[in-house]
Amino acid sequence: MLAFAMLFYFDFISPYAYLAWTQLPALAARHQRELVPVPVLFAGLLNAHGQKGPAEIPAKRLYLFKDVCRKAHLLGLPPLIPPPAHPFNPLLALRAASFPADDPAGQRRLIDELFAATWAGGGGVESAAQVAGCAARAGLDAAAVLAFAHSEAAKLSLRQHTEEAIAHGVFGVPTVAVAQELFWGTDSLPALEAYLLGHDPLSHDALRRWEALRPSATRTPR
Amino acid sequence: MLAFAMLFYFDFISPYAYLAWTQLPALAARHQRELVPVPVLFAGLLNAHGQKGPAEIPAKRLYLFKDVCRKAHLLGLPPLIPPPAHPFNPLLALRAASFPADDPAGQRRLIDELFAATWAGGGGVESAAQVAGCAARAGLDAAAVLAFAHSEAAKLSLRQHTEEAIAHGVFGVPTVAVAQELFWGTDSLPALEAYLLGHDPLSHDALRRWEALRPSATRTPR
Repeated sequence: MLAFAMLFYFDFISPYAYLAWTQLPALAARHQRELVPVPVLFAGLLNAHGQKGPAEIPAKRLYLFKDVCRKAHLLGLPPLIPPPAHPFNPLLALRAASFPADDPAGQRRLIDELFAATWAGGGGVESAAQVAGCAARAGLDAAAVLAFAHSEAAKLSLRQHTEEAIAHGVFGVPTVAVAQELFWGTDSLPALEAYLLGHDPLSHDALRRWEALRPSATRTPR
Repeated sequence: MLAFAMLFYFDFISPYAYLAWTQLPALAARHQRELVPVPVLFAGLLNAHGQKGPAEIPAKRLYLFKDVCRKAHLLGLPPLIPPPAHPFNPLLALRAASFPADDPAGQRRLIDELFAATWAGGGGVESAAQVAGCAARAGLDAAAVLAFAHSEAAKLSLRQHTEEAIAHGVFGVPTVAVAQELFWGTDSLPALEAYLLGHDPLSHDALRRWEALRPSATRTPR
């Protein structure tokens, strides 16, 4: 039922992606949608769009963590516990997260564990031992998950997912894609639900006007 | 009652600031807070923090308008109607928005009209005639508002407000400040309300851990 799939573009490095992941399985089930997790390298999205990540802007970095903790609380989640380092290298965890393609429930448990290891006090996901621990807790064959995460196929898959996301117009994580429509950030989940119910308030006239607008002034970055 | 004031940092260029402005007077009244509007130049914040604005990233620009329309709908507002150009030069409107300091109700009506002229089909706020029209609709002396907006005092005031915002750690608009605590974006209004009710879920241990974190990997922007 691919026509009814929702793609979830994520990177473990984003605490907002963690918040969204805690909500999306139930949201997808409420709307009879298949939830397809698509690991992508957030740094690759930032590079492609010439952006800075929120944690790369000093004034935003502390704010970001407060904001995530407050949003977690409003969602009824326990307080976040940051990983041992941030930013960290998420490549091994992201490559592992595509395993195993033929067992969506196992993949979901593995992603649960990798997110929990990152943002819920699990000690991080940067090392092979940490990723193997997540795989074991997810009930998977840890050696097989690690072998997959180190394979050329896994590297290629993550690179392709990231390029597909960029081609799709994805500029940040978390992003949920329903066909061509994107919903970015945890704060867009209510709009995603409205969209799935068929209540999309977009006016195509207004969108066309917006797309046709030209600047009358532009900023000169210093 | 300055100790109980909430500062609202805004620029007319931001449709999210418009959304927040539609909600904040009632929110402030619910919590017996004085709402103090502080016009700032968003471009100045972006320059200070080395950021790009969302409308400056091509993949984000169309998304931004869809997102604002969907959020407006969820707030029960009519669809936004974009101004004739965007980005535009907001300086005259921002300088006018500090007038008159001794009439908070008049200032609020003027800001209402300037936001409506920008995002609710009023035709824009870039020219002196447009700003004068807003002043007249707000029941103010349009000639006096224009004379103020063109004065050195108004230019200095906007520059000082922008510098104070940067010193306060403000990196975007809309931002509401309650003493040292910042709430950025329309999606932080629920957290602001919880904070005003005394329900702030922040763990100072977790915040200290976050602040003490060091990166174990950093992105090399291309």
